[in-house]
Amino acid sequence: MNSWLRIPPTAPCVQSRELAFEHQRQLTKPSGSLGRLEQLAIDFAGYQKTPVPQLKYPVIRVFAADHGVVAEGVSAFPQAVTAQMIYNFVAGGAAITVLAKQHAADFSVINLGTVEPLGEMPKLVNIQIAAGTENFCQTAAMTPQQMKTALEAGRDSCTDLPIDCFIGGEMGIGNTTSAAAIFCALLGTDVDDIVGRGTGVDDAGLQRKRQAVQRGLGLHVAAETSPEEILRCLGGFEIAALVGAYIGHAQRGVPSLIDGYITTAAALLACRICPSVADWLVFSHCSAEAAHALVLNSIDAQPLVNLDMRLGEGSGAGVALSLIQSSLLLHSQMATFAEAGVSES
Amino acid sequence: MNSWLRIPPTAPCVQSRELAFEHQRQLTKPSGSLGRLEQLAIDFAGYQKTPVPQLKYPVIRVFAADHGVVAEGVSAFPQAVTAQMIYNFVAGGAAITVLAKQHAADFSVINLGTVEPLGEMPKLVNIQIAAGTENFCQTAAMTPQQMKTALEAGRDSCTDLPIDCFIGGEMGIGNTTSAAAIFCALLGTDVDDIVGRGTGVDDAGLQRKRQAVQRGLGLHVAAETSPEEILRCLGGFEIAALVGAYIGHAQRGVPSLIDGYITTAAALLACRICPSVADWLVFSHCSAEAAHALVLNSIDAQPLVNLDMRLGEGSGAGVALSLIQSSLLLHSQMATFAEAGVSES
Repeated sequence: MNSWLRIPPTAPCVQSRELAFEHQRQLTKPSGSLGRLEQLAIDFAGYQKTPVPQLKYPVIRVFAADHGVVAEGVSAFPQAVTAQMIYNFVAGGAAITVLAKQHAADFSVINLGTVEPLGEMPKLVNIQIAAGTENFCQTAAMTPQQMKTALEAGRDSCTDLPIDCFIGGEMGIGNTTSAAAIFCALLGTDVDDIVGRGTGVDDAGLQRKRQAVQRGLGLHVAAETSPEEILRCLGGFEIAALVGAYIGHAQRGVPSLIDGYITTAAALLACRICPSVADWLVFSHCSAEAAHALVLNSIDAQPLVNLDMRLGEGSGAGVALSLIQSSLLLHSQMATFAEAGVSES
Repeated sequence: MNSWLRIPPTAPCVQSRELAFEHQRQLTKPSGSLGRLEQLAIDFAGYQKTPVPQLKYPVIRVFAADHGVVAEGVSAFPQAVTAQMIYNFVAGGAAITVLAKQHAADFSVINLGTVEPLGEMPKLVNIQIAAGTENFCQTAAMTPQQMKTALEAGRDSCTDLPIDCFIGGEMGIGNTTSAAAIFCALLGTDVDDIVGRGTGVDDAGLQRKRQAVQRGLGLHVAAETSPEEILRCLGGFEIAALVGAYIGHAQRGVPSLIDGYITTAAALLACRICPSVADWLVFSHCSAEAAHALVLNSIDAQPLVNLDMRLGEGSGAGVALSLIQSSLLLHSQMATFAEAGVSES
């Protein structure tokens, strides 16, 4: 029923990448001396099909939802915080909102299902699929129809405006438990290596979190379980929306800047469902959440920064956005050796 | 003759740091989840003597000069590039100029002595101490009077304007050779471990560079040689200016954001001459120049980013400036749990 997920995106433009590479070699600096910033400019040339790409329309969407698995006592924060933080996002008081303002990014929150339905507010889109997912220790987190709605909400989350870089954030008390279960299911990694403290759960909570993941895996996952079924059984509405957003944006020729632990679970699912989506993902930071480094390493992803952040919301990507801006400004505004009359080596 | 260098700066304000730490704990996020960005905000609270610091007046000064040691064939670029790049800086075509514009930083170049004197241009201050330093393989790079002038030029480089963060950049063909010699002299490290390819010298050039450093050390350095004498004999005018700038700004209560290989040599000298200057330095990035990581490690400096950059000019610090901006905006603009009505863990 979600056949659009498997439509492969067009590859980034090779010719624009080559022209951008040539342009970098002519700029007034030793060749290669801007390191990863040169590579980012070349990548964005491929994304935008132009040798001189620009970052003019960054868009940030925070997907939020509640998780049934919270009943297992897996979080340091009460479940009400999901809704409270949604209000904080749209009121401008959360980290990701501050970063959106810093970068003049288009920002809104998409609520896919909190335990209590929310009121109408500016910058808040309510798509109340259900009062949170089911507890995956007992049954599948979502029905097929619920997952379909969440995937499409992500895909369609910013089709109505110009966009040259997509950042997906997430909010959902309990969602590091869901992400950990997805990592274990996809990578076959040991639960103890993958489950971390999330927002800061204590030792007993960590133990409950590991047990919950173990039970979810035992109940839903076998060798032949498809990535879509892993998402449906162990994911959250916001994680499904992120999967839909990453695939949908790649299909539209828009790169996504991946944030931390939870968004990486969604990115990994997106790439398992539709492998060439990987060409359209930029990993922004390495989270301090245990196992993010391990997961990034397993997929050869090299994040731009490592600042010991573990907040989620899209905040790591929001911080890294300025490096992409620096990269593209340097690429477009620096003089060439010929223009500046500077001798080459 | 340079007794001002040893006047210890006042320590950053402990009370403001504590208040900033408390404020961070009240913001709507799991405690500690902004990682290094929290620490930066606390550091800047100490620098600015206020619990809620701001980044409003970043200032970038690029110090430039030629080096006599270039006669030993140590660089991939001809010596004329120092002057050519100075023109490129003030014309707006260089990396550091682009980054200064991105961050609306006050920017100018201070030429301390190129082989050919330069003309008058906006944003260029000419303090032509000499037509470059002497070749340290033959004699001391500077006279005492020349070093005094360079140190004071750095100290006085932005006393006439508001400033809350100082970035010193450098330009000088041959100056990675000078910086390498300073590192070896200060740290006692083996020449082969410290000397790298700079702007991209070939194998034969690398060999000449190592020999030049070895000769400089043999000629000028013994166990009891003072850091000031190491600077005078092996440094450059622009490195001396950076030393003066780091010490002078610390004495005025202004933090300096340290760039890469060459500025780290200046920072190390500044701390050896006046140890409490270390409290006022923020290390921005780890350069791809061989041995920068080793040197940073030896002084327990943890740079903010590692982007494989090795351009100098202050460019790594220019890129990292946006992270400081993010840190301080998050600190000042995020809501507290009480303000947002969000439950704590």
